[in-house]
Amino acid sequence: MEYILFALFLGTCFGAGATGGLFPPGAWYVSLNKPSWTPPNWVFPVMWTTIYVLISFAAARVAVMEGSHFAMAFWAAQIAFNTLWTPMFFGLRRLKGALVVMAFLWLSVLGCFITHWQIDFWAGMAMVPYLAWVSVAAMLNYSVANLNPDVEALDLSKL
Amino acid sequence: MEYILFALFLGTCFGAGATGGLFPPGAWYVSLNKPSWTPPNWVFPVMWTTIYVLISFAAARVAVMEGSHFAMAFWAAQIAFNTLWTPMFFGLRRLKGALVVMAFLWLSVLGCFITHWQIDFWAGMAMVPYLAWVSVAAMLNYSVANLNPDVEALDLSKL
Repeated sequence: MEYILFALFLGTCFGAGATGGLFPPGAWYVSLNKPSWTPPNWVFPVMWTTIYVLISFAAARVAVMEGSHFAMAFWAAQIAFNTLWTPMFFGLRRLKGALVVMAFLWLSVLGCFITHWQIDFWAGMAMVPYLAWVSVAAMLNYSVANLNPDVEALDLSKL
Repeated sequence: MEYILFALFLGTCFGAGATGGLFPPGAWYVSLNKPSWTPPNWVFPVMWTTIYVLISFAAARVAVMEGSHFAMAFWAAQIAFNTLWTPMFFGLRRLKGALVVMAFLWLSVLGCFITHWQIDFWAGMAMVPYLAWVSVAAMLNYSVANLNPDVEALDLSKL
């Protein structure tokens, strides 16, 4: 693994992860109806930090291997949809719109898992917690959207 | 060039580009003081669409070439910071915060240009309009931040 590559991928994850601090849950999120199995707030940053380190490790291993083009394409896709989800959910408060982004994110992560695993066992394994966590996040987004049908999206044009 | 790869990279750009529709300029942007050389609104979607097609073409060419790991790492970086910039500027209305994101975006695009150009002439050329455009966008962001020192950031916790 090249450490400069690892640092570059981790820096990219930092861009995506910054959305968590910029668009924090806050009182609005507390006020939403949530399913009983909703993880406590502290779990989210812990999971994301772990995942960002793991997928940067995976990308840095795979990037220098032959035939990694689809792995790299899916990696770029997941980080874009990952960065988009938080402003959509916590910024615009568009619960169903966020679910659409989540569908693209989930597919990108599935693509990452398959393509990384095909060329490197450990890179594939490093994608497993991410795939598990976006599955939980997708179910949570779906439940919250269903349990809060009347939540109003933020209309920036009125502010 | 592999067409499936091209479609994957273009789909990823679509995720980043969606922020333009989700966080549109609107009355708030109109009300800002802007430098005399500010491009008219219609130029932005035209430029971005062109750039997204060009950089997807560049990535699809370079991804299958040997030694493209840094090119792929910078490509992933630029798409993450690209996705982050619009919610920062038009969503949170944090003009200086957006300038920080823009600095990371500009460096990622410079990294893309150099690393793509080193392994493929046409991929490098396809990055030139992007580098030119983020340079203009960075100057515009800087000017707008300077010309509007009193603009209030959106405080989501109060909404």
